Amino acid sequence: MKNIPHRIYLSEEQLPKQWYNLRADMKEQPDPMLNPATMQPAKVEDLYSVFCEELAKQEMDTTTRYFDIPEEIREVYKMYRPSPLIRAYHLEKVLGTPAKIYYKFEGNNTSGSHKLNSAVAQAYYAKQQGLTSLTTETGAGQWGTALAEACSYFGLPLTIYMVKVSYEQKPFRKAVMRVFDGNVIPSPSNTTKVGSKILEEFPGTTGSLGCAISEAVEKAVTTDGCRYVLGSVLNQVLLHQSIIGLESKTAMEMIDEYPDIVIGCAGGGSNLGGLIAPFMQDKLTGKANPRIVAVEPASCPSLTRGKYAYDFCDTGKITPMAKMYTLGSGFIPSANHAGGLRYHGMSPILSKLYHDGYMEAVSVEQTKVFEAAILFAKNETILPAPESAHAIRAAIDEALRCKETGEAKTILFGLTGTGYFDMTAYESYLDHKMTDYIPTDEDLQKGFDSLPKVD
Amino acid sequence: MKNIPHRIYLSEEQLPKQWYNLRADMKEQPDPMLNPATMQPAKVEDLYSVFCEELAKQEMDTTTRYFDIPEEIREVYKMYRPSPLIRAYHLEKVLGTPAKIYYKFEGNNTSGSHKLNSAVAQAYYAKQQGLTSLTTETGAGQWGTALAEACSYFGLPLTIYMVKVSYEQKPFRKAVMRVFDGNVIPSPSNTTKVGSKILEEFPGTTGSLGCAISEAVEKAVTTDGCRYVLGSVLNQVLLHQSIIGLESKTAMEMIDEYPDIVIGCAGGGSNLGGLIAPFMQDKLTGKANPRIVAVEPASCPSLTRGKYAYDFCDTGKITPMAKMYTLGSGFIPSANHAGGLRYHGMSPILSKLYHDGYMEAVSVEQTKVFEAAILFAKNETILPAPESAHAIRAAIDEALRCKETGEAKTILFGLTGTGYFDMTAYESYLDHKMTDYIPTDEDLQKGFDSLPKVD
Repeated sequence: MKNIPHRIYLSEEQLPKQWYNLRADMKEQPDPMLNPATMQPAKVEDLYSVFCEELAKQEMDTTTRYFDIPEEIREVYKMYRPSPLIRAYHLEKVLGTPAKIYYKFEGNNTSGSHKLNSAVAQAYYAKQQGLTSLTTETGAGQWGTALAEACSYFGLPLTIYMVKVSYEQKPFRKAVMRVFDGNVIPSPSNTTKVGSKILEEFPGTTGSLGCAISEAVEKAVTTDGCRYVLGSVLNQVLLHQSIIGLESKTAMEMIDEYPDIVIGCAGGGSNLGGLIAPFMQDKLTGKANPRIVAVEPASCPSLTRGKYAYDFCDTGKITPMAKMYTLGSGFIPSANHAGGLRYHGMSPILSKLYHDGYMEAVSVEQTKVFEAAILFAKNETILPAPESAHAIRAAIDEALRCKETGEAKTILFGLTGTGYFDMTAYESYLDHKMTDYIPTDEDLQKGFDSLPKVD
Repeated sequence: MKNIPHRIYLSEEQLPKQWYNLRADMKEQPDPMLNPATMQPAKVEDLYSVFCEELAKQEMDTTTRYFDIPEEIREVYKMYRPSPLIRAYHLEKVLGTPAKIYYKFEGNNTSGSHKLNSAVAQAYYAKQQGLTSLTTETGAGQWGTALAEACSYFGLPLTIYMVKVSYEQKPFRKAVMRVFDGNVIPSPSNTTKVGSKILEEFPGTTGSLGCAISEAVEKAVTTDGCRYVLGSVLNQVLLHQSIIGLESKTAMEMIDEYPDIVIGCAGGGSNLGGLIAPFMQDKLTGKANPRIVAVEPASCPSLTRGKYAYDFCDTGKITPMAKMYTLGSGFIPSANHAGGLRYHGMSPILSKLYHDGYMEAVSVEQTKVFEAAILFAKNETILPAPESAHAIRAAIDEALRCKETGEAKTILFGLTGTGYFDMTAYESYLDHKMTDYIPTDEDLQKGFDSLPKVD
């Protein structure tokens, strides 16, 4: 008889009251951010023009281990949290593996992904500081949707620059943002100088993430009481996302489990950094030694093939420079349906941990990812986002290795979101039209050539 | 301090082991189904050509109070059940109502609706009987998706005739069915005689539900080991859906609550019949007296403006005739975005209960429905299906009445599913292009003229 249920829910009282700051337990800190104007380590005050003060403090704080989650944020979290930890019994059965597979599901909210965890926090602090509007950019749309939902809740107007090709190809994503009062503008647009200039030079352009970021930043700095916000990479985002890992660990303790392997997909690192936080803490403090695995697309392999170097976090080059694994902000990733993983860099915290050997990384090709996604949907009745399916692929591969060796390992992976707005990608796979792109060394060199020179 | 959490989850052990058959407690039974060939009451054997034997028995059984849920079905239910009962604290707050609002959320599976509860049962019994394939039709796509998911799990090939206009307008619905190996065919098609004939006569037609049903039925009766299955209206479907109400009642008992009002949207009645089952039992047996409210679109008002008469359940006229509230199978509902509520009739069980005064019915206009849907999404972080939003509208109206009277009533409504594939409808509302259609008495008369003559 199985004693562990399929879904393990924490009670509302078990919703974490604090976020966990991984940096407090790192023996060696990530190299300091640099102010691009002075090339000197950035001070917290340097960030006030970019971030709310409270978020700037969170960004720079390497010593405070736990940050209280304000009650107002916890009230919003209670709309959709604690999120379930799920034992993948049906998937285990179809794989015929002795491994025990668990996943933390973050898709149970209308934004459809874990992004809401940080969006709520960022919108809350912006409102607290008396800001009157926010801007951001969105490519695949998950971050834009999450931030629109959070801003709608706190009554904060939001302008979202959406890469024009996504705006046209994903009209339903745009529609969801509009439900939450998001002012969605296809980028490039005539609402900014930078957009107007690009439109004049390239009238037929379908836009790029870099251009959308530049427009969002220009709009923010030229509007009173407005700030530009980011949904990944930053230390503050990893802090907010630690709630994923904290809940996961508590849920596993309730059933006397502890993961041998923790697996997460990695684009900018927001989900991975959040999921692994308390397990990495155990590793850093010598309490346990789980394997931690980052999964990235073979088409955008920042950890597995990138350089550990100073680079800009945003293509708009407005935020401080960070030392991280990067392909260079000039790297142009080949087509891939996991838009959320198409980012040139990686969280500085995760980069440092990877560099110091605390973390592994694997890259996977997208056809193998969709094969895994469909097997998962059929057996676990959740249609995963392509991003999340990267973690599913790696988890299945680990489980199949257990089948060969007969080991009953405990695998935990993060299921970051749902794929309802990615059906074009699924159809491409089902129609056998999907191909795998792996950048050549020459492709990568072009990106590395764009890295800033830092002494 | 609030003692009741936002979400109330049953443990896996509390997943019902039996479905509840409401007819066993009805003092007066619905009038018998009639065999359209003989106009005599149908016998269970008459149904064997249409339904699996086990399902035919469930269809006819008016005395067995509880049916055991086979272990194999419970295993699949455990993928997504028990489903959460949610206290709508945030919605209550924004409404400023003293009412306590609860909803049972059935959208936590890839099919995105409660339809999976009966699809799993119907696919299981078909497989048990040795059938080798199934056919069905789908309009909005929720039933087709649910049945594809269930058939995929049990390894049963499924052909889905999808109304051509939906097939073209909802390509992503089709894609989800394909993920689950569903063979989706736009109707009318050349795969059947009836389809070929219609295509020849009306080459540009975009199809109709009636035509899709006819094609699915023809395909089933001309294929060995194949059956045609239906996702609503039937007694067997209400039986399977009773799991919604049984779980809801147990969850409410856990927090010492009992609803004063139970509200559900009503198309064919599958959700409403399931949600209200145990509360109606209390009413029939004198244990309690909650108000039971069916909510239907003003554009397709079978309960509020229909006739209580014998009619065909399916437009293809293959199933026995049933006495029910109906607009006539020839009634053509005006455009409405809640495709799942665009049905001419109503479950015979619910019709009888309504006729005998155990149930109320209200009709609502779609712009008011979408207004409620968006308020709900913003405050409860679930984007509701247009069908489900009918129940939200009625629940909000009841809560606002409580605000006027100061009564702290306990309201329970069924949130049947998510609206991710209905963004065209949401955009229509946001763009102020949505209009309300209410049939005239003349429109209704045309439908009534199609009612069969029964002595």
